[in-house]
Amino acid sequence: MSPTSPALSAATGPVLLGPGALTALRPATSAAIEGGFWHARREVNARASIPQGPSLLESAGNLHDLRLAAGTAEGDFRGDYPFMDSDVYKWLEAASWQIGQIGPGTEDGDSRRADLVRDVDRIIALVAEAQQPDGYLNTWFQVTKGGERYKDLRWGHELYCAGHLIQAAVAHHRATGGKDLLRVATRFADHIDTVFGPGKAIDGFDGHPEVETALVELYRETGERRYLDLAAYFVDRHGHGVIGGEAYCQDRVPLREAENVEGHAVRQLYLLAAAADLASETGEAELRAAGERLWQAMTATKTHLTGGVGAHHDKEDFGDPFELPNERAYCETCAAIASVQWSWRMALLTGEARYSDLIERTLFNGFLSGVSLDGESWLYVNPLQVRDGHTDPGGDHSARRTRWFRCACCPPNIMRLLASLEHYVASTDGAGLQIHQYATGRFSGEVGDAVVGVSAHTSYPAAGAVVLTVEESPGDRPWTLSLRIPEWSSRHTVRVDGEAADARLDNGWLRLEREWAPGQRIELELDMTPRLTRADPRVDAVRGCVAIERGPLVYCLEQADHPGGGLDDVVIDVTRPLTAEERPDLLGGVTTVSAAGRRRALPQTAHWWPYQGVGHGDTASAPGGDLALTAVPYYAWANREDGSMRVWLPTS
Amino acid sequence: MSPTSPALSAATGPVLLGPGALTALRPATSAAIEGGFWHARREVNARASIPQGPSLLESAGNLHDLRLAAGTAEGDFRGDYPFMDSDVYKWLEAASWQIGQIGPGTEDGDSRRADLVRDVDRIIALVAEAQQPDGYLNTWFQVTKGGERYKDLRWGHELYCAGHLIQAAVAHHRATGGKDLLRVATRFADHIDTVFGPGKAIDGFDGHPEVETALVELYRETGERRYLDLAAYFVDRHGHGVIGGEAYCQDRVPLREAENVEGHAVRQLYLLAAAADLASETGEAELRAAGERLWQAMTATKTHLTGGVGAHHDKEDFGDPFELPNERAYCETCAAIASVQWSWRMALLTGEARYSDLIERTLFNGFLSGVSLDGESWLYVNPLQVRDGHTDPGGDHSARRTRWFRCACCPPNIMRLLASLEHYVASTDGAGLQIHQYATGRFSGEVGDAVVGVSAHTSYPAAGAVVLTVEESPGDRPWTLSLRIPEWSSRHTVRVDGEAADARLDNGWLRLEREWAPGQRIELELDMTPRLTRADPRVDAVRGCVAIERGPLVYCLEQADHPGGGLDDVVIDVTRPLTAEERPDLLGGVTTVSAAGRRRALPQTAHWWPYQGVGHGDTASAPGGDLALTAVPYYAWANREDGSMRVWLPTS
Repeated sequence: MSPTSPALSAATGPVLLGPGALTALRPATSAAIEGGFWHARREVNARASIPQGPSLLESAGNLHDLRLAAGTAEGDFRGDYPFMDSDVYKWLEAASWQIGQIGPGTEDGDSRRADLVRDVDRIIALVAEAQQPDGYLNTWFQVTKGGERYKDLRWGHELYCAGHLIQAAVAHHRATGGKDLLRVATRFADHIDTVFGPGKAIDGFDGHPEVETALVELYRETGERRYLDLAAYFVDRHGHGVIGGEAYCQDRVPLREAENVEGHAVRQLYLLAAAADLASETGEAELRAAGERLWQAMTATKTHLTGGVGAHHDKEDFGDPFELPNERAYCETCAAIASVQWSWRMALLTGEARYSDLIERTLFNGFLSGVSLDGESWLYVNPLQVRDGHTDPGGDHSARRTRWFRCACCPPNIMRLLASLEHYVASTDGAGLQIHQYATGRFSGEVGDAVVGVSAHTSYPAAGAVVLTVEESPGDRPWTLSLRIPEWSSRHTVRVDGEAADARLDNGWLRLEREWAPGQRIELELDMTPRLTRADPRVDAVRGCVAIERGPLVYCLEQADHPGGGLDDVVIDVTRPLTAEERPDLLGGVTTVSAAGRRRALPQTAHWWPYQGVGHGDTASAPGGDLALTAVPYYAWANREDGSMRVWLPTS
Repeated sequence: MSPTSPALSAATGPVLLGPGALTALRPATSAAIEGGFWHARREVNARASIPQGPSLLESAGNLHDLRLAAGTAEGDFRGDYPFMDSDVYKWLEAASWQIGQIGPGTEDGDSRRADLVRDVDRIIALVAEAQQPDGYLNTWFQVTKGGERYKDLRWGHELYCAGHLIQAAVAHHRATGGKDLLRVATRFADHIDTVFGPGKAIDGFDGHPEVETALVELYRETGERRYLDLAAYFVDRHGHGVIGGEAYCQDRVPLREAENVEGHAVRQLYLLAAAADLASETGEAELRAAGERLWQAMTATKTHLTGGVGAHHDKEDFGDPFELPNERAYCETCAAIASVQWSWRMALLTGEARYSDLIERTLFNGFLSGVSLDGESWLYVNPLQVRDGHTDPGGDHSARRTRWFRCACCPPNIMRLLASLEHYVASTDGAGLQIHQYATGRFSGEVGDAVVGVSAHTSYPAAGAVVLTVEESPGDRPWTLSLRIPEWSSRHTVRVDGEAADARLDNGWLRLEREWAPGQRIELELDMTPRLTRADPRVDAVRGCVAIERGPLVYCLEQADHPGGGLDDVVIDVTRPLTAEERPDLLGGVTTVSAAGRRRALPQTAHWWPYQGVGHGDTASAPGGDLALTAVPYYAWANREDGSMRVWLPTS
């Protein structure tokens, strides 16, 4: 692969590669989602989730803490964590992307945009006032620790917060052109650059990666090479026992030597996103190889069917290979987001379709489950099973949706990904346009010095038909439209202007090379027949089970659809067909999948010991009866009454 | 059942029922383990574990903290927990029981006894010096909190520590007759009685139960009824939201209304032990019924095959019904001990054999795994699986044995149970003697005003033969020798004086009623053929798996016995026979069980996604080869090199 021309690079969005970046692909030069599934979800994000941010940050104390640090309010610090500020920054990032989205010109749009701009500017002013003269900014340490700094790199989250400040500032600058927050962020980055590094006061790094990938973005936005160098320094110091040597803090083994992902899932993935950023900007082969190796290891051994990662509640850890529990799947929503961010960087770096396969799976399942259908409550953990008789612990790790968390990292993280989602849909490589995700909208790339663009129309994932229309094409040269054929797809057809098309399948990419003319129509049809899926036999947790999937969606059973009993005794009959049914009335409009099943005969409950000799006389009670199973998309679970849920269904 | 005569009650041991106790059974009037399996384990406890206690408590800071509280040393408080003192008390309890064991009259015994007495007396003096004038004693609060008291009932552990102090004092008094520690404990108990209770300064209880069962023992030892009343008050206040309402602190639901065990496993079980104590002393039917109901629910839905309980690392929680993970089984050693303590109280209360079935299973498996074969290192958690590629977190929750823990609750808890184990072997009911566990030794009970006694000889569980000889019998009346037939046993024979005996099986008890004469010989033979065991189908974690058991022992595979590969791809062939082999050279002498198996064909590792459509072409690699499986007793695992381990074996 060769570096692509930066000439027509996109003007906004995350991962805006630097001019010398050495990647296979670059972000689309323009991208807009205008209808369909994701548009509806983004409308909820724009109209419900994001506008409520300021009042939630006020009531949780985050804005109060900024005022305390600025000396403009009195009282005690509120909140339990040194990273309270990061919630504010993530919301600012989400709101900034959103401001860039809201179409001006309509009365509704103008008024919503103005409200949001007012909130963002007000909160940016709070942040600026809280910053110390030398650029340092962390309300927890300023208010509760008498200004102590960088004494607890393992847990202090000072650079983590700086990273989210930088990300917010870059987003604000890219989306609005505003420089106020960028000035604050740059001052903090400059301060960090005076303190950390070889021969400087501190040789170390933050226990929670984030500043690394943020500094690369700041380099991209400002052109200042020293931010890239500082990011490289931080990435390289991990894994050498510098801050204690724990896997939790990504300090046990250097990335370039690691054989599998480990430790705190979000920390690992943010670090890997930074490594991919560095490999993109510098072309370092070893760092790229580490990313490829670790991504393969993660997906092959440590990823749940939903794309969720992180098997342990304890230390939010990845867990061991093939240790993928259902009821105790941690699958933090933030880890799903981090996985998408890393995978997108790897997709651009390598050009390989599999990274966007995982992005699709994660977006539609383990990520989207994190927000309720109304956009007003959240899941921090995303289990694949809730048992009959579950005693919910409440709190952040509840299996019930919660209005806000004590550790509120996930909600504004969801907001910022949804608000910038169009930038994960398409890319360009100088020779054409790649469509990574299927969504109704418009996407452009570049071929040499010319713009190429398509519009897309689809009700995906409700149906598998995607119609693309060429909107812009130079007309004087061939270029390639590449469509990702998802890993889950076993059958597809493609037609150009109504006729079966000659297209080659290239490692997940369907390549259509033509001298395209505006108005040409490409019809892709992916077979959406519901299917049963099984796991590698080493995934002990789901031995003897199958899952229902349809298109990119993982399905689950919920107790609400199976009155008169729980779900722990349900068995699916895999010899009977699955049936899909559109249910516009249900859960905001879903396609359900029906299957034949039964309630199993259970051992007599009167016996006190649940283990018996093989071949002993069966003490089972009377067999249970047949049961029609109704599965709903996993992303929509926990939007009705409390009850049990399961993704993996025993077959006998 | 009717209350039994207290006339000839045992003079030592835990659970020394009060004179008015209303139980089906009472502890044996005398009990001694003199040979065989448990004798060997107790010798290690007596000669390695217990004697090292004082130096470990010194190096961990516990004794230093006592000196700080007494004002006889200077420096910082050492250790991270408010319950540092309880480690000292549990060791004192263990050492006290041990002093009562060591046979005087031999040079070795006299010298070991003198050493231990010297250590115990020295440490009791430290404890007495640290006590405050009004009886209060907790070094954490005295040293680090400026004497603040009872402000944090959820986490303070002040009454928890008081409970272990009382248990130690009762043990010391029963085993040695010494009153020094009893005076300290009584003063603390009297202080607590002035502070806690209806109309007193504090209406509440300690977040970690322990003082409740200890106060019942103090009542038994002193005859002071108000200790029993205080215990009843504490037990009754649980579950009413008094200290926050969490299941973790046993404050979510009152015991008398609870349907299943919940929350922190050790806290739940110590509380239930106290409830059984109260029901024993008061005869309260409702509390007894709650114990029976919760014990049934725990064993039927929340107990691992090893007897281990507590499914979650997070909050050390019981987890949901049938949520019994293997690799993340918490199964804290202390929870196994607490389960034994509760079950023994229920066995005495009800006379039912099943409680001692669980005790046997727990002792031989999930408890004994907590201590290394040499008695010098420990496991805090007792998982049922360690995966290939496991990244050990180190620390207290390591799957590798550790010399001592930061939270060192388990090691001295193991010591005290092993040192008092003979008191869990036999009981009496006024009409005969019940043998609950099979161990070489001597056990006596009472029939009316007469003593009845047997000696037992057995190599159990290496072999299934137990020979009992009547040693004492009045000769003028019939009495019943009851032998527990374990729940795992599918076939047994019994002979009296060489002839097949007429005995009825009564709900787990083999009843032999005779006018016994000294010298009569009862031969019980339990079939020790190795067997395969499966779980209730709702235990998702082990679907499609079997476990190997032999007698009361659960077996596991360890990587050390299967060179050339891991264990995650191993399959057992259940159609081929199991073979037992005595291996005196291995792991201190064990019986191994061999089985036929193979390494399974695995999906191609090059593929990145471990989930595939059912019926898709199999992408498996070449089939693995046959593999002879060698299983070792679970209690002996983790005594060789690090490596994977598993109890449950896939069958296909």
